[in-house]
Amino acid sequence: MNYILKDENAIYYECGYSCDNAIYIRLGSEAFFITDGRYTIDASENLKNTHLIITKELYKSAVDIIKKSKIKKITFDPKEWSLYGFGSLESIKGVKFKPELDFSHKRRIIKSQKELKLLQKSAKLGAKAFKRLAKELREDGFGKDEYSLTYQAKSILSDFGSYELSFDPIVAIGKNASKPHATPTKEILQKDDLLLVDAGLKYKRYCSDRTRTIQADRYMLFDTNQSFKNKKIQKAYDTVLKAHDNAIEKARSGMRAKKVDALTRDIITKAGFGDYFVHSTGHGVGLDIHEMPYISQKSEETIEDGMVYTIEPGIYIPDEFGIRIEDMVSMVDGRAEVL
Amino acid sequence: MNYILKDENAIYYECGYSCDNAIYIRLGSEAFFITDGRYTIDASENLKNTHLIITKELYKSAVDIIKKSKIKKITFDPKEWSLYGFGSLESIKGVKFKPELDFSHKRRIIKSQKELKLLQKSAKLGAKAFKRLAKELREDGFGKDEYSLTYQAKSILSDFGSYELSFDPIVAIGKNASKPHATPTKEILQKDDLLLVDAGLKYKRYCSDRTRTIQADRYMLFDTNQSFKNKKIQKAYDTVLKAHDNAIEKARSGMRAKKVDALTRDIITKAGFGDYFVHSTGHGVGLDIHEMPYISQKSEETIEDGMVYTIEPGIYIPDEFGIRIEDMVSMVDGRAEVL
Repeated sequence: MNYILKDENAIYYECGYSCDNAIYIRLGSEAFFITDGRYTIDASENLKNTHLIITKELYKSAVDIIKKSKIKKITFDPKEWSLYGFGSLESIKGVKFKPELDFSHKRRIIKSQKELKLLQKSAKLGAKAFKRLAKELREDGFGKDEYSLTYQAKSILSDFGSYELSFDPIVAIGKNASKPHATPTKEILQKDDLLLVDAGLKYKRYCSDRTRTIQADRYMLFDTNQSFKNKKIQKAYDTVLKAHDNAIEKARSGMRAKKVDALTRDIITKAGFGDYFVHSTGHGVGLDIHEMPYISQKSEETIEDGMVYTIEPGIYIPDEFGIRIEDMVSMVDGRAEVL
Repeated sequence: MNYILKDENAIYYECGYSCDNAIYIRLGSEAFFITDGRYTIDASENLKNTHLIITKELYKSAVDIIKKSKIKKITFDPKEWSLYGFGSLESIKGVKFKPELDFSHKRRIIKSQKELKLLQKSAKLGAKAFKRLAKELREDGFGKDEYSLTYQAKSILSDFGSYELSFDPIVAIGKNASKPHATPTKEILQKDDLLLVDAGLKYKRYCSDRTRTIQADRYMLFDTNQSFKNKKIQKAYDTVLKAHDNAIEKARSGMRAKKVDALTRDIITKAGFGDYFVHSTGHGVGLDIHEMPYISQKSEETIEDGMVYTIEPGIYIPDEFGIRIEDMVSMVDGRAEVL
């Protein structure tokens, strides 16, 4: 099979190395990694079974390789390529470029044992960071605004620079948590505020992802056992937790992803909050923070052993509060195990 | 004129607001900002003279607007669009999509007075952060590895979370500095090591960019007056500094950018280090960290008043050391002023 990749993680998956300026070409049993001189040393030390080509003109080099190979057809993912970059490739005479959406994500949907271990480690480090964040917030969290709390979360999640983050953490207080992708404000954390933290880190490039919503009290425990003073919040929280636990308990290999989505959504809908669960139940996690399978109302994907994805139901009441509880699971022997 | 934009900064420049999921369309005197429900509040508060369209299907909405307008031609930049996203637009019958590379960057190449002030402020905050970093490194820099030093630089540059960074700072010790885009290693900072720091922050979205190379001593001063114990390093350093100062002194509006490049390169070449100056002299800075004009050997661009760009000559001796000195300049009354 022949294919050409541009995305950094897609390339890393194939050959054990990648960087932000590379093209990868696979032609049958031969593989080529094209990059510029800044990466010569790192690439030659890390590439596996792949020809390294150092050049200032990556696209020209890719064209040359494809022309020389005399192949007739090569697969690419239109999401990976800009119109600009792709223009110079397309023009190769006699070669058909076959578009396949999510080509690399499809290849990566079932995780290897090695990948599972890395994801497990990443999730464990993420959980540990939540504990450490709790400890620090107990000591000096009250009185800080969301900017400052977000910075603190970043510092701890990255272990003060040792790890990259999966994404910019969300640290949202009270009504700001009602935006699923809240960005920081000057809102200050006060006793008994609702506090939502959604954060993850990368361990050897593999992402973790975790959300907890808590009542900020003197314990600041980021566990799922929470007592809110506000009854409406508590009702919503109990509903989200029930939905979260239900999906983890009942998800099975062989099930359609939309059925897993229904395992959370039906509970939230029955409790009367259906209109306030405004996103899907989860997404695959791996080298990218958002991968296949997508656990949504429309997803026809079949869940299989070796898949890793999030379960993250939520309820968002505009201008009041937002709740989300998220864990990563892997499918093992037909069932979901929390990482 | 009609044009359609996808890049976040390109859009911000037109209408004073942007986010990571938006399409902007300008049709003569009318402008449209298309985004999803997560950004309704922020967009409606910040957009200027622009229709706001909230939708789950951005591309469909863009197609509808273009169809309804009955225009015949619309400009776009192929670098801004993925093959995937653009596919749905191209199919509109009777409308010619006219590619123009760097369309937005060309519009932004001359900075307004307001932009100059923001860039000045950004550069000043950047310089201040270098001073603060020096102070902290004097106290506890020695014995730390590059990961830890990079984290420290990030913390200080961001003022502990208040500012976004222009890019991940480069903090490289000794021979690691010989890679122009060094990434952190476990190398530990010791007395009299060469230390290169390349860092910048964003003030109201406008980037700063600054590099200093110093001998790490008890003063840790990030100024350009440096004494290295190693004579070869000192010779290279003096050459880079001379090249840097020469370009700032002699750059003129009306000059070709390649002539400005020659103002640094000729000095480095004459000193025998020509093969070790492996990149161009500089790049424009604005909403993006890399903008027009590009100050390279091939750049035919004419320098004009109101342009802002970096002067950053360097010498990189593989496996030995690397030196770079970088400042931002703006062209005012025909000459380069350091920001």
